[in-house]
Amino acid sequence: MLLSYNQLYQFTYSIFKAVGCSDAHASVATKALLAADIRGIDSHGVARLSGYVRLWEAARINAKPDIKITHETPSTAVVDGDSGLGLVVAPFAMQIAIDKAKTVGTGWVSVRNSNHFGIAGYHAMMALEHDMIGIAMTNASALVAPTFSVERMLGTNPIAVAIPANEQPAFIADFATTTAANGKLEILQRKNEEAPLGWVQDKKGNTTANANILKHGGALLPLGSDREHGSHKGYALGSIVDIFSAILSGASYGPWAPPFPAYVPVPQNMPGAGLGHFFGAMRIDAFRPANEFKQHMDNWITRFRNAKTADGYDRVLIPGDPERETEAIRMKEGIPVIDAVVDDLKNVGEKFGIKFIS
Amino acid sequence: MLLSYNQLYQFTYSIFKAVGCSDAHASVATKALLAADIRGIDSHGVARLSGYVRLWEAARINAKPDIKITHETPSTAVVDGDSGLGLVVAPFAMQIAIDKAKTVGTGWVSVRNSNHFGIAGYHAMMALEHDMIGIAMTNASALVAPTFSVERMLGTNPIAVAIPANEQPAFIADFATTTAANGKLEILQRKNEEAPLGWVQDKKGNTTANANILKHGGALLPLGSDREHGSHKGYALGSIVDIFSAILSGASYGPWAPPFPAYVPVPQNMPGAGLGHFFGAMRIDAFRPANEFKQHMDNWITRFRNAKTADGYDRVLIPGDPERETEAIRMKEGIPVIDAVVDDLKNVGEKFGIKFIS
Repeated sequence: MLLSYNQLYQFTYSIFKAVGCSDAHASVATKALLAADIRGIDSHGVARLSGYVRLWEAARINAKPDIKITHETPSTAVVDGDSGLGLVVAPFAMQIAIDKAKTVGTGWVSVRNSNHFGIAGYHAMMALEHDMIGIAMTNASALVAPTFSVERMLGTNPIAVAIPANEQPAFIADFATTTAANGKLEILQRKNEEAPLGWVQDKKGNTTANANILKHGGALLPLGSDREHGSHKGYALGSIVDIFSAILSGASYGPWAPPFPAYVPVPQNMPGAGLGHFFGAMRIDAFRPANEFKQHMDNWITRFRNAKTADGYDRVLIPGDPERETEAIRMKEGIPVIDAVVDDLKNVGEKFGIKFIS
Repeated sequence: MLLSYNQLYQFTYSIFKAVGCSDAHASVATKALLAADIRGIDSHGVARLSGYVRLWEAARINAKPDIKITHETPSTAVVDGDSGLGLVVAPFAMQIAIDKAKTVGTGWVSVRNSNHFGIAGYHAMMALEHDMIGIAMTNASALVAPTFSVERMLGTNPIAVAIPANEQPAFIADFATTTAANGKLEILQRKNEEAPLGWVQDKKGNTTANANILKHGGALLPLGSDREHGSHKGYALGSIVDIFSAILSGASYGPWAPPFPAYVPVPQNMPGAGLGHFFGAMRIDAFRPANEFKQHMDNWITRFRNAKTADGYDRVLIPGDPERETEAIRMKEGIPVIDAVVDDLKNVGEKFGIKFIS
């Protein structure tokens, strides 16, 4: 089913309003959530709307949060999300990072007591219009086994970095610190296909092509797949995200990070409150004039895009290229939503007497 | 040959003095360089001393640099290294980051006109004694092909992050953003052994076991090895290091980063000055009380170290464990230096009439 951005916006906004969000929060949350659908990261968009509603039903999301700064210095802050939607808490915290960067050059905000915030890239990109570099990361419930381990200890813990250019589109990296994001595994599960070796391991720690292995004690692998190919680096990156997001802020971390599915019980003896995020904003002209920097970024991007390719590839991609191209197509032609998600959204609508797309 | 830290220190210090460094700079440079030998990263320690001397002979290193801040805000600075030894420029810049963090919570310093700075981890670790998180990265001459490319566009561009704990040793990640660091490839070359597939590609972009392929138009691969295993993520990470280190500061970047070997000509039309580095320091108590944070770090480290292992492995490592254990052994038993490096050091000594270890 092909739906327009506006159709999905109206429906999603109505659902967030129905669970009790203010107009402003419903609007912020809808924009953050749909940024995933527009940019082609289908696992993180409306496909998750019913999941947020179930967390609200389980009283694990607070629709009327009192989000506030609990500690700050001129360049830092800790934010307590009051169990609000991560989709609302994250833009609030990123705005603080931007405001601090305006004053002292950079701003860094660690967040506790939040939950899933959609795609990291959306929040990082908030910095671009201010001629700043934006950084966003989050921890997540444990699906990933560190190198040599058979226990799931880390989430897919993504990192996003958005860097402005001049005439070229911005450089926007946004990636899970695992070999493959969980969304890609879910696609294989739906299609009943095998996973490439190096994406997941079984409960004994051997890599396997079984895309359903996480239901049988398996785990996702850190970026690098195995020790010989640098999985200790992916494990270190995921750990840094966990520590910056959750230990700096006082959120729950490592194997104690709370899960997204409402039917999965929260871990016992959580050492902190909710999920954690970390945001950064660096004003370009705190380093050099923004126009100079952006002209060099154009030069960098152009040189890399025109690098000589291997046979069979027509160009070298710049981080953000595929998502930007998907966005251009989807804003014009509509956003494809698979039947399972359409049914799911219809059910969510029925709970609140809201018709899904008339 | 097994040498004590003091033996290597005296010799290295004498060489740096002989090329014209001040007492203070010779001391700083020696400590930074030997940190690699102590910690077991043999490719980055005294094995490179003759390389630095050759760069000085080629007038590409200035032994009496006027290192200075060229632009700053309360939380940021740009440093011009005046072609000084990276081993001297980097600690200077990291100290500025630390000083800024004392005042406004965090400090971020981008550096131009520098060269090889030894191991990134050494500089990041400077933050630890101040109860700060330390971050260090650098660009380097191009050896790495982005995903889909057959051109070398990026250096091995390492990232180091040092995070203090309480009773546990600090968390210290320090890794090249490639599947394998170039030093590991050099070891295979010396032993005439093959490389695991996924470390390097040939000039057509096919992965190969030929450890000497970089001499024949090949390239190192970004962390992730190939697209299916996330090499676009390693490529993005290496790019972020390049941009933070060199475009923020005005250093040379991408394929134009100057090479370490003095016999390799510097690239034509360099868009900036020398190599670039990027440093960060975040004061823990700019987020939460340092003792609270460090106790949670102890908890994090203990839980991860005791995670259930796969058969054949006795424990899960915490980033920094192997290097710390090597340091304990080498400070006690001595630092092994291979014959080729001993000969190289003898030759360097002869240039200046300095006897290598009496």
